[in-house]
Amino acid sequence: MDIWEAQHLDINDPMKEYRDYFDIPENLQYLDGNSLGVVSRGVAQRVESVIQHQWKKDLIGSWNKHQWIDAPERIGNRIAPIIGAAKDTVTVSDTLSLNVVKALSAALNMRPERTVILSDTGNFPSDLHMMQGLIRTLGKPYVLKLVKPEDIETSIDETIATVVLTHVDYRSGRIHDMPSITQKTHQAGAISVWDLAHSAGALPLDLGALCVDFAIGCTYKYLNGGPGSPGFIYVRPDLINEIWPLLSGWLGHDKPFSFDLDYIPATGIRRMRVGTPPVIAMAALDAALDVWDNVDMRQVRKKSVELSELFIAEVEAKCGNYDIELLSPRESTMRGSHVSFRAQQGYAILRALAAENVVSDFRAPNVMRFGFTPLYTRFSDVVIAVEKLYGILRERRWDRQEYKQVSGVT
Amino acid sequence: MDIWEAQHLDINDPMKEYRDYFDIPENLQYLDGNSLGVVSRGVAQRVESVIQHQWKKDLIGSWNKHQWIDAPERIGNRIAPIIGAAKDTVTVSDTLSLNVVKALSAALNMRPERTVILSDTGNFPSDLHMMQGLIRTLGKPYVLKLVKPEDIETSIDETIATVVLTHVDYRSGRIHDMPSITQKTHQAGAISVWDLAHSAGALPLDLGALCVDFAIGCTYKYLNGGPGSPGFIYVRPDLINEIWPLLSGWLGHDKPFSFDLDYIPATGIRRMRVGTPPVIAMAALDAALDVWDNVDMRQVRKKSVELSELFIAEVEAKCGNYDIELLSPRESTMRGSHVSFRAQQGYAILRALAAENVVSDFRAPNVMRFGFTPLYTRFSDVVIAVEKLYGILRERRWDRQEYKQVSGVT
Repeated sequence: MDIWEAQHLDINDPMKEYRDYFDIPENLQYLDGNSLGVVSRGVAQRVESVIQHQWKKDLIGSWNKHQWIDAPERIGNRIAPIIGAAKDTVTVSDTLSLNVVKALSAALNMRPERTVILSDTGNFPSDLHMMQGLIRTLGKPYVLKLVKPEDIETSIDETIATVVLTHVDYRSGRIHDMPSITQKTHQAGAISVWDLAHSAGALPLDLGALCVDFAIGCTYKYLNGGPGSPGFIYVRPDLINEIWPLLSGWLGHDKPFSFDLDYIPATGIRRMRVGTPPVIAMAALDAALDVWDNVDMRQVRKKSVELSELFIAEVEAKCGNYDIELLSPRESTMRGSHVSFRAQQGYAILRALAAENVVSDFRAPNVMRFGFTPLYTRFSDVVIAVEKLYGILRERRWDRQEYKQVSGVT
Repeated sequence: MDIWEAQHLDINDPMKEYRDYFDIPENLQYLDGNSLGVVSRGVAQRVESVIQHQWKKDLIGSWNKHQWIDAPERIGNRIAPIIGAAKDTVTVSDTLSLNVVKALSAALNMRPERTVILSDTGNFPSDLHMMQGLIRTLGKPYVLKLVKPEDIETSIDETIATVVLTHVDYRSGRIHDMPSITQKTHQAGAISVWDLAHSAGALPLDLGALCVDFAIGCTYKYLNGGPGSPGFIYVRPDLINEIWPLLSGWLGHDKPFSFDLDYIPATGIRRMRVGTPPVIAMAALDAALDVWDNVDMRQVRKKSVELSELFIAEVEAKCGNYDIELLSPRESTMRGSHVSFRAQQGYAILRALAAENVVSDFRAPNVMRFGFTPLYTRFSDVVIAVEKLYGILRERRWDRQEYKQVSGVT
């Protein structure tokens, strides 16, 4: 596809106006919104207002006057429709990793006679690390059983206490079949925990209809909440009042300001809270969520597939003679909103691309990952990015010491 | 003391210039910096710069270019001298409550043959709640033994795995004898965990010299990091590499970006990290810490005592005929940087005070708490606050339905 055709697609894109919500540097092809979303225009002003008008003027009184104390559930209720969750089933706080432990410990409590946690080797390492830390602390007989992603469904049986999976693989973009796996999990009497890191804001989800037990996610990828913005946790509403949290902090207490020595869990999703909410970080996230009020997730998905398919077709057409191979599933229904290619020189290639204003990211050992964020990625971004990639491969512009030498965080 | 005398003290206060670092509303007597510190002048600009120049322009590349990835230890190293800790022994992340669990779980691992956790009934409830949650998860034989604060020292024996205390009582301001308790803890072969919520930035501390094993704290009180700003954790440097964290997240991994499936702990204090650092919240905290670079904690303590003593003397001189009684220790060496009085109508009295621009806070059931923050509290603030308190008591201005009715967070 030439650039004129791509620009024509952009002009006729029914989602093109969403890009105006964001403040994206010019002449940049940012294909890494799956790692860190861009700045929304409203964020700086909202944060400044919280600092200068709320914190500064009303100080401690802001917890009531500006409803800081309710922010975790108020913002949770803005995320809920994006992930197909009912009102008052989501709270926002802490990090995704910490929310893994909250969900896992609750799930294990709900199946005290079972000891096996099932996950897969494609899961994001931090999720596995958090599970390993909890298991090590609990001691035997708990076991983390890791299988290949494609073997999950056949591995679910009545020994399994809980199935903890990341819906969209952070490397390949492969989607797990959430309806089928959740159903099999429940048929085996186990508890389902889904990590939505690469799903929330990227794919239509319907946690409620699937009766998912727990879901967790982050808000700095497709939800654009800002670097290290808080995580969220969803709990099935008919389960929440049966959970006794491992991480039982005062703001999850039924009456935090009664200062009881004994923990009594709050009713509802507030019980998944721990400590004092990060008000400034929450303000940035809240502002970033404004765009979502009118977004149709099916439309997001449709454009995501179009962008991804265009990218794959263009790369294979133009760069097919070079050492680069599709890692992601070819079938679009099996793929999230990013596309990965394997390349032995992937790291250097991506450094060379970055020098030409195409930003994507690398995952060891050889994965080049390109994210498509339909609210702001344009078809012309895809075409320009592939054109630059082709130039870099053709002229071996990646073959420079400064690009090959790994430095800092990849 | 009359207001002219107090203003004379302010003019001659060797710390008076620190107040210029802060942006405090005029005509406000803010005696609640022990709950939420005020805005530092540099904060809004620093945060805006992170949003508009780092996140917006450099996007994902900021993790390297702007050293976001190192922020937890870089900022930890700014807090270290304030609490008498060596370089590279403090990391900043998550909440104080979560850091309680990190410290407690590590301490229990270090004394596998012991099962009793010792704390006191004056501890902040969230610390106790977090301990209760962990114990409930671990199951028997773990026990939380709660004694009165004054009985701590005599309760330390060789059954105790760890002594977990808050240094300065959140209600009364009573200081625990950290040197003596830490020494007895170690003599009994137990592990010391100190919560510094009301100590960091208020009192000179010397964690290193006392060989304290773990310390945790928050940054939104005397350190002015902003509402819900991140907590910190200190680990004795010769212990850190023996700890296997319960909350073992990817950023505490030895090589986070190798994406190993198995957790391998990082060397040093980084191992206490869990998930992605909250960059925007950290920027606010970082700016708020600028003032501390030149602060002498002994000078802070000296003025804190002067302010507190003046407050007690003024309240007792002017308000002694009303139903109000000193709850805090009378002896200044036994008291942190806030002073509490008991009053049956405490809630209504503080509401009436707030209506006259004196901000302090209430702790159920009857505690009026007044915090003194030497970097910005003036002697004249103390005198004006007491004069207003006296007027409210004398004319029973607290005796209004709107003040008596408890609403929102207290």
